[in-house]
Amino acid sequence: MIAVDWGTTSFRAYRIDAAGIVVDKREAPLGILAIKEQRFAEALESQVGDWIEAGVHPIVMSGMIGSRQGWREQAYVRCPAGPDELAAKLGSVTWGMQGRKAWIVPGLITRDAQGVHDVLRGEETQIVGVLDDLGPGAHTLCLPGTHSKWVRVDDGRIVSFTTHMTGELFAVLRDHSILGRTMENAGDIPTAFDAGLARSKQPGGLLHHLFGVRADSLAGTLTAEAAHEFLSGLLIGHEITSVAPTGGTVHILGSQALAARYERALSGAGCRTHVLDPDAAVRGLFRLATALGRKA
Amino acid sequence: MIAVDWGTTSFRAYRIDAAGIVVDKREAPLGILAIKEQRFAEALESQVGDWIEAGVHPIVMSGMIGSRQGWREQAYVRCPAGPDELAAKLGSVTWGMQGRKAWIVPGLITRDAQGVHDVLRGEETQIVGVLDDLGPGAHTLCLPGTHSKWVRVDDGRIVSFTTHMTGELFAVLRDHSILGRTMENAGDIPTAFDAGLARSKQPGGLLHHLFGVRADSLAGTLTAEAAHEFLSGLLIGHEITSVAPTGGTVHILGSQALAARYERALSGAGCRTHVLDPDAAVRGLFRLATALGRKA
Repeated sequence: MIAVDWGTTSFRAYRIDAAGIVVDKREAPLGILAIKEQRFAEALESQVGDWIEAGVHPIVMSGMIGSRQGWREQAYVRCPAGPDELAAKLGSVTWGMQGRKAWIVPGLITRDAQGVHDVLRGEETQIVGVLDDLGPGAHTLCLPGTHSKWVRVDDGRIVSFTTHMTGELFAVLRDHSILGRTMENAGDIPTAFDAGLARSKQPGGLLHHLFGVRADSLAGTLTAEAAHEFLSGLLIGHEITSVAPTGGTVHILGSQALAARYERALSGAGCRTHVLDPDAAVRGLFRLATALGRKA
Repeated sequence: MIAVDWGTTSFRAYRIDAAGIVVDKREAPLGILAIKEQRFAEALESQVGDWIEAGVHPIVMSGMIGSRQGWREQAYVRCPAGPDELAAKLGSVTWGMQGRKAWIVPGLITRDAQGVHDVLRGEETQIVGVLDDLGPGAHTLCLPGTHSKWVRVDDGRIVSFTTHMTGELFAVLRDHSILGRTMENAGDIPTAFDAGLARSKQPGGLLHHLFGVRADSLAGTLTAEAAHEFLSGLLIGHEITSVAPTGGTVHILGSQALAARYERALSGAGCRTHVLDPDAAVRGLFRLATALGRKA
């Protein structure tokens, strides 16, 4: 099969054999934002046309390619949902003279007790990819990132989730707010990160804590390099305080650098943590392709 | 005297007679960010050179003109501080062949129980301008804006304050985050504003509540016009929940539109409110000029 993880800014394709082994890989900065005039088919052919020509199939794609700005919008599937529900709702696109076809994984939607919605797209496939690692029973997953996801999994199905704008807020504050003027990324400074975590547990609220980064910078008690790490700890700390995970293990699924930050923050909050293999999307796509095979 | 309210984006000057009556006014988009190569003296002369020529004095300026990016940085005065402490710490700049001189009001600095700093610059002069209205005793002031200030005043002195990045966060989220894509300013929609206020009191935390604006927009339960007002209510609601003003009256000092939003939010939170005359800076500058006269 051909597994495609097609996001906002990047395109990643994997050629996978019948045993689930990745035998080839292609990667390009061809996220959906880089595709003009809906030329998604051309972009796909330009990257893996030779694989398609060689008869490798099916093609299963996940991520923002299924959003309103993508190739074809896939309606969100309502939680609780597992691999079977997702496979049943795979949408398809066709193109070209020979009627070539690719499948697109839908995202998930949920509503909280107050009726407010939450959505995810792309993460459902990553989660499907780790279900075997998690095994039966109830589990808490944290997928840190631009939009951090906290997910409840029960017996192999996604029950509910919440999203936190932690990563995006960090980026817009660094790039577009007054905080960015006194902030510089000089890599990890664990003491500053921990100070941000500690601050998140003090009274005053996030809106006030944010301005404290500015005030301490002006007062000379926070260097630009420390401010960067302090803000990271502050935001991650507020996210974790809001979620307030209690008991059991938090399974972390994200890039190595981000997973390390959440592991540190969660351990400090008294949680057990378990970092999952971040390449889960490929395995999720393989599993959904397998379910598709059974369905077809 | 000549009172100058010189901020980041605007310049406002007032000619005031000995009785404290504003007899003339000049306004220009000559905030400190618009001044190149430190040409502050030229900018001031270009606006009120005729007043200076006519012998009107003293000139007292407040706002970001006293910041590191302004004409001359004025060290923050430590709280508690009132008009006397501020007048005693007025800095001065001189220019020109005739040794012309203007005074600059310093900002204020405070530290909370955890040792984190907070600062303000410009608001100290506005607060001085309303001290007579407040009278003796303890008072709570709210100055909504880019950086909302909550101030404790006791017997005519500023005891402590906290800053909340509410206004700036609203602006960066609207202009630079994914939320801005599904948001449009179509003026007041009280029901949407109230829904944002109500959301701020629900569990989940601000980082999660922010993403809910996106999710409800995608789900079709929040229009672009409503999202704009909902986000405003959400952020103001989180600010007020963090401050948790208890008992007594909250005195609001800000532009009419913003004061109306805070009045609505605070009333909903069970607070009594009192909206002060927003032109307080001029009266504050007059009062400091008077104190300067006594000192000189």
